[in-house]
Amino acid sequence: MPFPSAPPPPPPLRVTVWCEGRAERLDPEVAKRYPRGMGGAVAEAVEQHLGERVLVRTAELDEPDHGLTEEALAATDVLTWWGNLAHREVSDAVVGRVHRGVLAGMGLVVLHSGHLSKIFRRLMGTSCTLRWRNAAERELVWTVDPTHPVAAGVPHPLVIEEQETYGEFFDIPEPEELVFVSSFDGGEVFRSGCAFRRGKGRIFYFSPGDQEYPVYHHPHVRRVIANAVAWAAPATDREQPRLTHVESGWFEHTGGAA
Amino acid sequence: MPFPSAPPPPPPLRVTVWCEGRAERLDPEVAKRYPRGMGGAVAEAVEQHLGERVLVRTAELDEPDHGLTEEALAATDVLTWWGNLAHREVSDAVVGRVHRGVLAGMGLVVLHSGHLSKIFRRLMGTSCTLRWRNAAERELVWTVDPTHPVAAGVPHPLVIEEQETYGEFFDIPEPEELVFVSSFDGGEVFRSGCAFRRGKGRIFYFSPGDQEYPVYHHPHVRRVIANAVAWAAPATDREQPRLTHVESGWFEHTGGAA
Amino acid sequence: MPFPSAPPPPPPLRVTVWCEGRAERLDPEVAKRYPRGMGGAVAEAVEQHLGERVLVRTAELDEPDHGLTEEALAATDVLTWWGNLAHREVSDAVVGRVHRGVLAGMGLVVLHSGHLSKIFRRLMGTSCTLRWRNAAERELVWTVDPTHPVAAGVPHPLVIEEQETYGEFFDIPEPEELVFVSSFDGGEVFRSGCAFRRGKGRIFYFSPGDQEYPVYHHPHVRRVIANAVAWAAPATDREQPRLTHVESGWFEHTGGAA
Amino acid sequence: MPFPSAPPPPPPLRVTVWCEGRAERLDPEVAKRYPRGMGGAVAEAVEQHLGERVLVRTAELDEPDHGLTEEALAATDVLTWWGNLAHREVSDAVVGRVHRGVLAGMGLVVLHSGHLSKIFRRLMGTSCTLRWRNAAERELVWTVDPTHPVAAGVPHPLVIEEQETYGEFFDIPEPEELVFVSSFDGGEVFRSGCAFRRGKGRIFYFSPGDQEYPVYHHPHVRRVIANAVAWAAPATDREQPRLTHVESGWFEHTGGAA
Repeated sequence: MPFPSAPPPPPPLRVTVWCEGRAERLDPEVAKRYPRGMGGAVAEAVEQHLGERVLVRTAELDEPDHGLTEEALAATDVLTWWGNLAHREVSDAVVGRVHRGVLAGMGLVVLHSGHLSKIFRRLMGTSCTLRWRNAAERELVWTVDPTHPVAAGVPHPLVIEEQETYGEFFDIPEPEELVFVSSFDGGEVFRSGCAFRRGKGRIFYFSPGDQEYPVYHHPHVRRVIANAVAWAAPATDREQPRLTHVESGWFEHTGGAA
Repeated sequence: MPFPSAPPPPPPLRVTVWCEGRAERLDPEVAKRYPRGMGGAVAEAVEQHLGERVLVRTAELDEPDHGLTEEALAATDVLTWWGNLAHREVSDAVVGRVHRGVLAGMGLVVLHSGHLSKIFRRLMGTSCTLRWRNAAERELVWTVDPTHPVAAGVPHPLVIEEQETYGEFFDIPEPEELVFVSSFDGGEVFRSGCAFRRGKGRIFYFSPGDQEYPVYHHPHVRRVIANAVAWAAPATDREQPRLTHVESGWFEHTGGAA
Repeated sequence: MPFPSAPPPPPPLRVTVWCEGRAERLDPEVAKRYPRGMGGAVAEAVEQHLGERVLVRTAELDEPDHGLTEEALAATDVLTWWGNLAHREVSDAVVGRVHRGVLAGMGLVVLHSGHLSKIFRRLMGTSCTLRWRNAAERELVWTVDPTHPVAAGVPHPLVIEEQETYGEFFDIPEPEELVFVSSFDGGEVFRSGCAFRRGKGRIFYFSPGDQEYPVYHHPHVRRVIANAVAWAAPATDREQPRLTHVESGWFEHTGGAA
Repeated sequence: MPFPSAPPPPPPLRVTVWCEGRAERLDPEVAKRYPRGMGGAVAEAVEQHLGERVLVRTAELDEPDHGLTEEALAATDVLTWWGNLAHREVSDAVVGRVHRGVLAGMGLVVLHSGHLSKIFRRLMGTSCTLRWRNAAERELVWTVDPTHPVAAGVPHPLVIEEQETYGEFFDIPEPEELVFVSSFDGGEVFRSGCAFRRGKGRIFYFSPGDQEYPVYHHPHVRRVIANAVAWAAPATDREQPRLTHVESGWFEHTGGAA
C-alpha cells in the first residue's frame, strides 16, 4: 500500500501512566516533592515533550482493577509503570491482562523499582534483582547507543545530582538494545536504559526515579521518558499471537499474512 | 585461582531427561516407534555421545511431583524437557521449582512441542506460539552459527526425512544465539535452534521431534541433543539471584563477590 | 529541546541510488527487463512509496568518482548500493569516503550481490561469502521480526517466483536485527533481511535482486526497499567519530556532549 | 562421530603473544615496570593459568614480518595483540594475513590501546575511537554476564588501583556478548570486556592495560587474559570462508558439509 505524498498526521498516542500512589500518601516529604504525585510528574514529562501527539491518563493501584480494566487497556497504546512498595498487591488478573496487551502490541515503559513489578518479571522471565543502596549519590547516565531514538536530545552524560544507587548484576535477559549505562559515586555501574521486544510489544526499562529525590522533575529525565513512550508506540494493529494450523501452500491464495 | 597443569576430570554431569510419557501410552504406534519411550530415546542420545561424562535419569509427568522434587532438581545439572498433550497438568509448584533452578544455574534443553510448556513460556515471557501442520514433510536443519558448540559435528544441512512442519512467526524473544534455521517442503522456515540465558542458567530450544516420526533415533539429531546438554552445563556453583543491599565501598574489604 | 505540538515536516530525505550499470549495457536481456536500468527501478521503488518525503538521484560506476564525490556524499542521507561484476573497480578512495560517511551517520541499503562490495565487506569485517546457484527458483521471504519498520506492509511470506538462490553459511557478523529469512525451492535458507549499526550509520542488507529476473519491479520488494531507505535515515547530525581527550569532570560545565 | 568415554587430552593451544615492544625501549620507567616487556607479562599470564594446556611464543613489531609470517600464523591458535604508538607501522600485508587467519578460525584477544590497531578496526568496520585521559584513576571492572567463560574466577568488581581512563562512546559494533563494564574515579563508564565473532574466529577485547601502570602484573587481570585466550580457541579446523556454487540437492549425496 503506497504512502500518500503527505500522510495525514496519525491519531494521538494514547498513554496510560500507572503509578502505585502509596509513597505520596504515606510520606509527606514525597507528597511535597511531587504535588501531583509521581504519576503526575511522569504524565507531565510525556505531555511536555509530545504535546498534541499524545492523550495521557493516569491510573493508580487503589482504583478498581488498578485503573487497568480490559477497556482501559484496549484503549492504551503505551503504558508506563512505576511501583515500589506494593508489587504484590497488583492482582494476577490485571497482570495477565497487561501481559496479553504487550504481546499484542501495547508498549510498556518500566521505571525504577518497577524492575520488581510482577509484569516486568513476567515479561523478562528472570528475577530482575540487583544490588542497591539509598545514599543520595550522584548518578551519571551515559549513552552507549547514540543513534537510538530513546537517546535523542539526551546529554552525554545525563547528570542526576542525587539518586538511589543501583549496581550489577542486574538479573535481566540480555536487552535487545542497551542504550544507557550509569555510574554512581561509589563506583557501581548499572545498565540503566534497556530496550526489549516481547511479542509485538516494545518495552523500555529506565532505572532513575527513587521517590526520595525529585528525579521526575529533571528536564533530561523527562526527555528520556517522553522518548521512550514515543519509541514504544505500537508498530502494527493490536493482534494476539496464536498457535495457527496451516495447510501446505496456505499463502498461495491469500497473499500471505499481513 | 590458578588452573593446575592437568586439571582432574570434572564430576559427571547429572542429567534429568523429563518426558511427558502420555503419547507412548495412548498411541501404540508411538510405543512401537519408541520402545523405551521418547524419554528413553533422548536419554540414549545423551549417554551415547557423552558416555562417562554424564549420569542420566529419566522422569515423567505421572510420577509424584512429576519426578522433579526439590532433591531431584538440586541434584540435576541439566534438565531436558519434552511435552505435548498435557502442559497444563504440570503443577505450578513444580514449574516454580524448575524456574528457580534455572535462574540459579541449572541448564535446560527444551525439545519440540515443549515450546508450549509452562516452564519455557515462563522463561521466555512470550506466548511461544507458531504456525504448524503435520504432513510428514522433509526438514532441512541449516547451521547459521558454525562455531557454536551445539553445532559441533552436525552436518550442514541436517536432513530429517519426515517431520512436523513449524513456521514463523515463532513468538519468542530474540535468541541470545541463533544456531539453526530449518526449511520444510512446503517452503516454511523456522528458527529451530535457539540459545538463551536466563539468570545463571543456559537454555537451548531445538524444534525437531514429533512423536509421529522416529526423530529421536536420528543419529544427527541425537548429536545435537548431546551437544546442547553439554553446552547447558552450569558454569558456576548453584546460586539464587537476590536483591542485595550494599554499603558504599562494600567490595573494598571483601575483594568483591565471586 | 521540547518538541513543538505540531512539528514542521522534516526536509526531504536525500537518497542516492548507486548501481553498477554494467549488466544493462552488456546484456540486452537485462536492458529490456530494466529499461531505466536497475538503478532506475530502485529509484522508482523509493519514489513510489516515499513520494515528497524523498529527493532521489542516481549514480553509476562509470561516472567520475563513480558519482560519489565528497559533495555528493555530504548531500546524501541514505545511499543504496547494487553491484555485481565490478566490485574491484570501485576505487579505494571512494570506498573510504563512503565508509566515513556511514560512520558519521549516512544510511546504507545494500542489495543482492552488493554483499561482495568493498564497502559492505569493509563495514562487516568478514568475507560476506555464501552458497549460491542461479536456477530461477521460487524464493519465499519470511518475516521473523514482525514489528520491525522494514517489515511494515510486507506480506508474510513475500513470494518471488524466480530468483537466484542464496544459501547459508552467510559469513556476516550477527546482525543487530534479523528481519527476514528466505527459503528456496531446493531447500536452502538464507538470512535475507539484516540490519546493522556501524558508528552513527544504519545499514540494511536485503538479498533478493538478481539481474536475470524482474525482482525490482516486484511491488512487495519495492516496499521493502522503500522501508529500508526510510529506516536508514540519519538519526542525528552528521558527525565523524573522534578519539577525544577529556579532563576529569569535563562534562560538569559543558552540560555533557549532545 | 561419538565422543569416547574418556576423550584424550587435546593438543596444547598454540598462543602467540604479540606486543609492539616500543614503549619498553623508549621509556625506562616502562622497562623497569615490565622487565620481560609487556608481551612477557601477558605471556606469563597465559602460562601461569593454563600451564601445560598452552604453548606460548612472543612476537614483536620490529621482527621480520612483525613475527607473523604465514607459517607462524598457521601455527597459531590464538593471537593476543597489544599496540600503542605504532599501529601505522604494522604492514598491510601482515594485517591481511592476520585477518584471513581470524576469519578461518584463529582466535584474537585485543588489549587496551589495541582498539586502534589496524586488525581490530578491520574486523570491527568502525573507527573504534573513544574518550580518554591518563590520570591514574581507579578502575572498577564489573561483570554483567556472570556465567560467561571469560568471567570465570574474576571478582566482582575487579579493582585496578591506577589505570588510564576510557569513556564512552566507544565506536564499536554491538558486541555479540558484553561481559565487563568499567567505571573510573571521574565517573566515566566503558564497555571494557567485549566478545565478537567474525567468520570462524572468536575475538575478545579487554581494555585495561596502559603501560604507565603495572596492570599486567595484576593477578585478576592475568586471570581475565588467560580466560579470554582459552575462550578464543578455535572450535573447528581452520577453514577459509568461500563463495561456493552449489547445485540443487547438492547435499543429498554428500551428507551435507561438515
